[in-house]
Amino acid sequence: MKAVVCSEGKLEVADIEPPRPGPGQVLINVLRCGICGSDLHARVHCDELAELSRATGYDHFMRSDQRIVLGHEFVGEIIEYGPDCRKRWRPGTRVVALPILRHGREPHLTGLSEAAPGGYAEQVVVQESMTFPVPNGVSTDHAALTEPMAVAWHAVRRGRVSTKQTAYVIGCGPIGLAVVVMLKAAGVKTVVASDFSPRRRELATRCGADVVVDPATDAPWTAAPRKTRITRVTDVLNLGFDAMERLRRIPNLPWWYGFRLAHTLDAGPSGPVVFECVGVPGIIDDILTAAPPRSRVVVVGVCMQADTIHPAMAINKEIDLRFVLGYDPGEFRDTLHMIADGKVDPSPLITGTVGLDGVDNAFAALASPEQHAKILIDPAATATAP
Amino acid sequence: MKAVVCSEGKLEVADIEPPRPGPGQVLINVLRCGICGSDLHARVHCDELAELSRATGYDHFMRSDQRIVLGHEFVGEIIEYGPDCRKRWRPGTRVVALPILRHGREPHLTGLSEAAPGGYAEQVVVQESMTFPVPNGVSTDHAALTEPMAVAWHAVRRGRVSTKQTAYVIGCGPIGLAVVVMLKAAGVKTVVASDFSPRRRELATRCGADVVVDPATDAPWTAAPRKTRITRVTDVLNLGFDAMERLRRIPNLPWWYGFRLAHTLDAGPSGPVVFECVGVPGIIDDILTAAPPRSRVVVVGVCMQADTIHPAMAINKEIDLRFVLGYDPGEFRDTLHMIADGKVDPSPLITGTVGLDGVDNAFAALASPEQHAKILIDPAATATAP
Repeated sequence: MKAVVCSEGKLEVADIEPPRPGPGQVLINVLRCGICGSDLHARVHCDELAELSRATGYDHFMRSDQRIVLGHEFVGEIIEYGPDCRKRWRPGTRVVALPILRHGREPHLTGLSEAAPGGYAEQVVVQESMTFPVPNGVSTDHAALTEPMAVAWHAVRRGRVSTKQTAYVIGCGPIGLAVVVMLKAAGVKTVVASDFSPRRRELATRCGADVVVDPATDAPWTAAPRKTRITRVTDVLNLGFDAMERLRRIPNLPWWYGFRLAHTLDAGPSGPVVFECVGVPGIIDDILTAAPPRSRVVVVGVCMQADTIHPAMAINKEIDLRFVLGYDPGEFRDTLHMIADGKVDPSPLITGTVGLDGVDNAFAALASPEQHAKILIDPAATATAP
Repeated sequence: MKAVVCSEGKLEVADIEPPRPGPGQVLINVLRCGICGSDLHARVHCDELAELSRATGYDHFMRSDQRIVLGHEFVGEIIEYGPDCRKRWRPGTRVVALPILRHGREPHLTGLSEAAPGGYAEQVVVQESMTFPVPNGVSTDHAALTEPMAVAWHAVRRGRVSTKQTAYVIGCGPIGLAVVVMLKAAGVKTVVASDFSPRRRELATRCGADVVVDPATDAPWTAAPRKTRITRVTDVLNLGFDAMERLRRIPNLPWWYGFRLAHTLDAGPSGPVVFECVGVPGIIDDILTAAPPRSRVVVVGVCMQADTIHPAMAINKEIDLRFVLGYDPGEFRDTLHMIADGKVDPSPLITGTVGLDGVDNAFAALASPEQHAKILIDPAATATAP
């Protein structure tokens, strides 16, 4: 079969042996596969990523001297089942799957491990237990967006945003845009999106952002309609005073009533939820410095380098920093069905489609924020050799 | 009245004008006042702290060229009320109060602001609305511990530790010890405390720590009895596989049942809760590197300098970093009553008592972890001038 092979940082279309499905695994025919920012990063920095993964207890991350088929955002049709499968879906059924494969008890990240070649290919092997049929009426292009949208859905769930809290999305690359879509799907009333690129700001608006900000000229924090009195630490202190003084004026208040009320100060009026979708050194500290007290900061962008923060600033504001990764199978399946139900429209994210022979150029194009968000690969659109 | 005045980093006993209670304020006679690590820090670094406070919206933090009466952990007896008070307690009643005073709408941190002199003195002014009577039977020494114990109680509440989760307390200074006490009061079954100092480890044991570790020879993470299968990222992935494979084997499972179950993977088996009570550069990154996946790290120690972290490590493990500060009035009151009810015994923390004339030496002694945890000031024990 044809596949794009990544080795020593180079991408080339090659004819390779098609993968064989092992026990509990299914071979699928790739219809579309998205190009992910992690793929761009892994192409260049996979050895560092592999060291980091090893330190956290995963030892199969791709290395630059291996021959890797990238691609973990795919949709395909069932071709055949390996041994010990339940064979629930007929061949030809369109499916999406979590990009994760298990050989024995060893999990492998599909498209990021030599032992689990990915979707930049005509065929890919998936785990039957992690596979979901694509509901009728969902376009193949949209189904291919299930994986990145699930990343955003997981981030939004971990952010525990209430519909009345203001959400700030810092950085409107594909994941930032997906977070905007998912925040609106979750019913969050005010979503402020921030990016230096006019093109990305335009896409953020199409994804449903209520306020769109160029951080070169405006701070996102002041761009949203004021929802809270809490912008300074002094406001937090005054809130405590006001509550206690009101309470102490009420005669014959049962003791527990007052303290329940006072306690709500702690859990209660929280700041906004901020989604960090940039992933470069310095951005977390910028957010800690500029965000209002009691913000919850969900770190979705992956900064690979060492980074500097000022913990005292985060302490003074009582900030929560929640680092997130991936999604669980339930969230992946929810995302697919949110797309099927029309609650989520991923179409603004899709800015291009290429064949396998277009992947190398697509990687170059994705480096510039002015052109593209998500480029899909359609293996069937690959030009045949002249 | 006599007070310890801090100016240009020097502490000296001086005769100064007693403070006058303003509207809604009460003058109290100081019986005890604890010396806090923040006082040691503010004595030397207050100008940096003031700049940081200003950046977060509080502009009254002490400066080195001012004459400051430190002390925010005090217990005293009511002397007289200012105007507009409810005068609920008779003169002579023992009270504790949140160390916060309001002039108009401007809050001031008592003992850390020139306009709100603190408890290293014979008398101090408190806000009536923030004052609580000390229940009978609570010793004056123990009542003086209300404030630091409330800091620990707030940290424990923000850590949302369940009784079955393992809690790790990194650093057993006064606040680390108080966190150990509060975790045990909250019913947490396994509390692992870690400190390089044998003296502090001994105090941690007296505070109720179940396992005590010298980080020079043992990692706290392996010292506790194993409560979880999740020690590597690979374990998280396998957990997902196992759940999905179990689910998919159940015939005629209603679709929502399976996905509810899969969702529990996300919210469900979380890692331990780690309390960072050291507050020096590097410790947060050490914890991110060594802690199990899905740990919640509560940052109680105040690192004033810039600090380096590796976000990718925190992302791979999906770590929550919760920065905490202070407490709310309800938590302060809860703490006082937990002490009164005997649920909390702060006595292991108290390692010495001095008069106002002993404060300078006490600051020196507190710099060494081998001698002291908490030193109380008893203004009545001050030697009279010869």
